[in-house]
Amino acid sequence: MQTTNLPHIVIVGAGFAGMETARRLANAPMRITLLDRQNHHLFQPLLYQVAIAGLLPSQIAFPVRTIFRRQKNLTFQMGEVAAIDLDAKYIKLDGSVIAYDYLVLAAGGRTNFFDFDSLEKQGFQLKDIETAVKTRNQLLSMFERASHEADAEKRKSLLTFVIVGGGPTGVETAGMLAELITHVMVKDYPRLILSDARVILIEATANLINAYPDELRRATYNLLRRKNVDIRLNTKMEGFNGRRVTLADGSHIESQTLIWTAGVKAAEIVDELNVEKASGGRIRVEPTLQLPGHPEAFVIGDAAFLLNGNDQPLPMLSTVAIQEGKSTARNIRRMINGAEPAPFHYKDPGLLATIGRNAAVARIWGFSFSGFIAWVIWVFLHIYRIIGFRNRLIVMFNWAWDYLFYENQVRLITKE
Amino acid sequence: MQTTNLPHIVIVGAGFAGMETARRLANAPMRITLLDRQNHHLFQPLLYQVAIAGLLPSQIAFPVRTIFRRQKNLTFQMGEVAAIDLDAKYIKLDGSVIAYDYLVLAAGGRTNFFDFDSLEKQGFQLKDIETAVKTRNQLLSMFERASHEADAEKRKSLLTFVIVGGGPTGVETAGMLAELITHVMVKDYPRLILSDARVILIEATANLINAYPDELRRATYNLLRRKNVDIRLNTKMEGFNGRRVTLADGSHIESQTLIWTAGVKAAEIVDELNVEKASGGRIRVEPTLQLPGHPEAFVIGDAAFLLNGNDQPLPMLSTVAIQEGKSTARNIRRMINGAEPAPFHYKDPGLLATIGRNAAVARIWGFSFSGFIAWVIWVFLHIYRIIGFRNRLIVMFNWAWDYLFYENQVRLITKE
Repeated sequence: MQTTNLPHIVIVGAGFAGMETARRLANAPMRITLLDRQNHHLFQPLLYQVAIAGLLPSQIAFPVRTIFRRQKNLTFQMGEVAAIDLDAKYIKLDGSVIAYDYLVLAAGGRTNFFDFDSLEKQGFQLKDIETAVKTRNQLLSMFERASHEADAEKRKSLLTFVIVGGGPTGVETAGMLAELITHVMVKDYPRLILSDARVILIEATANLINAYPDELRRATYNLLRRKNVDIRLNTKMEGFNGRRVTLADGSHIESQTLIWTAGVKAAEIVDELNVEKASGGRIRVEPTLQLPGHPEAFVIGDAAFLLNGNDQPLPMLSTVAIQEGKSTARNIRRMINGAEPAPFHYKDPGLLATIGRNAAVARIWGFSFSGFIAWVIWVFLHIYRIIGFRNRLIVMFNWAWDYLFYENQVRLITKE
Repeated sequence: MQTTNLPHIVIVGAGFAGMETARRLANAPMRITLLDRQNHHLFQPLLYQVAIAGLLPSQIAFPVRTIFRRQKNLTFQMGEVAAIDLDAKYIKLDGSVIAYDYLVLAAGGRTNFFDFDSLEKQGFQLKDIETAVKTRNQLLSMFERASHEADAEKRKSLLTFVIVGGGPTGVETAGMLAELITHVMVKDYPRLILSDARVILIEATANLINAYPDELRRATYNLLRRKNVDIRLNTKMEGFNGRRVTLADGSHIESQTLIWTAGVKAAEIVDELNVEKASGGRIRVEPTLQLPGHPEAFVIGDAAFLLNGNDQPLPMLSTVAIQEGKSTARNIRRMINGAEPAPFHYKDPGLLATIGRNAAVARIWGFSFSGFIAWVIWVFLHIYRIIGFRNRLIVMFNWAWDYLFYENQVRLITKE
């Protein structure tokens, strides 16, 4: 396969953006190298399910090689990109050098702790399998410890879970965690005093899920309240020392578990690049998603910063990433054929968030749903998009089972 | 539930021995405390499947609390036993003290590296989920690295896997790993040169699976040979430095992966006890499985050393552990009722080992099987014994799928 006269496209990142680009270039006369530091694609919208012991890591992670087994023009390589030389057009990876004709930088995002660097060690996050499993181990360990803690105050603090950030991830995590406690943990810990357990959701602004229309925000708020989530709007976190959360008004919450869902910024490799950045370290791109001054380099997904029609930056969402991947694949084909790349236009396909076992809020095709119907839609759309037929069946089976029996076999505490 | 006048039975270890004891005491008028340092029971006979990416950790690990949800006389506590005071009859656990009337020490075993302490760091083992996942990550990472290694010698050494120990675990691991390479890895790594990959099985004695009858040993040998496993009998390992295995005859094998399956010894907590030990640090017990001088303390499972009728020590097998648990539960009931404990007699239920996807050797009810029939028996017996109906279905489903499609979605490399 040394067809070196074909153009070489290097895609950095096997997230939604990179995967979509690679797929849309199947059968094209080119050589594609797909790089990722993991050997798997992660279905990130369901990562919070791993954290609350609802799904297994392998149910939302899929080996990249298996996914692309039949795409003959693609080679996958696992490794960490050390540097990108945009002028000389090559990438340094684990000591070796990979030259490219076209670069698609889809390196994704990571948690943005803003000024709270200490949270990276003492807080919990939902960014990859490792951090989600760490969160799961923490949640379950707190119940184990509480089960033989005689001191009532200490027991309460062990069972107080603070989630910072009222975006979709924070809302989904809070809702599911509240349900885990009410329906599952009470059975595993018959001596547990249920009123000791608290889920507190902290949001700095006046609203949950700010990007959603007003009626869904209200539905979300009410659903979470019904599940006994303690929602604190207009509340700022000021610090967390691993035992106590301090709020901006000076008050404290005794808790050992703070899950930070309040920010995303561009990946490490993006920091290194000497190009113009916007908020969150994201790279300002042309309307075509090209890097200014480097027409052969595209930046897409969470790492890219582009304003939409309303002068709002495009959100860091999988739907944006997928559409950007599609557009970039089309533009690379055009450029190879001597045509001009076309600008990217985002089409909002709707918004979805689940809040617990059978409740969700959704806005699809202009309609707003909440409650059970929204949940069914959400389940259907998400499962449908999960790659791998067997996994789709297993996830379906798991969910059907959970739904029927409120049962769950995933509650393993694994050593780190 | 402060029924403190009931006798208090403390069971240390939620392996096969401890679980069986606990179950057999369901509904008895006593208080049972079951302790384990993990929150889950591990189905250890299938652990090697996790290492070769055939099963998920959660398919062979089951939360203890869920298993015993309906057993009202039992309390589970997760924690590490720090010390046992046999005279004062209490256990120290994470700072707290638990007094007992009867003690069942079923703390299990751990890998015995004999004089090769360095192997604990540089070698790989199959003892718990952590070590099995570490082994899986190593195996898969070697393929990733080999896929972009230009140097032929280095590539060969990356793809050389050495398994030390020709017992059931070593044989099963070697057979399954050889199959993973031939049937799955060739698809994931189309550019991989298959003849570069080698599985070498090293056994110090003249036979594989010494405990099995002669015709099964031969069948095992032939099955492994047919799968291209390089079997080296009468071969002793002398050292491993992470890059090269040294044999007793002075020859070397260039390999970065050595899986040690050649020994088991009693758990750490057993080392601390000032009682008479036999080989492997196992505790010599009375024919009733009681600790000499401490009739209220039973030692069972891998930690116990007892000669059977032929003056051979009972093997460290799940079947032995389960029968010992059953006998101990009966004896505790007898003693509480004022009767004498009865001696333990092991009934050999047969032996089983799998060597790859649809081949196994088995001896059950006096008959020897090999090949596909043995495999069907093995699958049936093992799945049947796995706890949890849902997991049983998922394991079945996975296996049926693998069998039909040689497919496998478990090949995730996870960070440590």
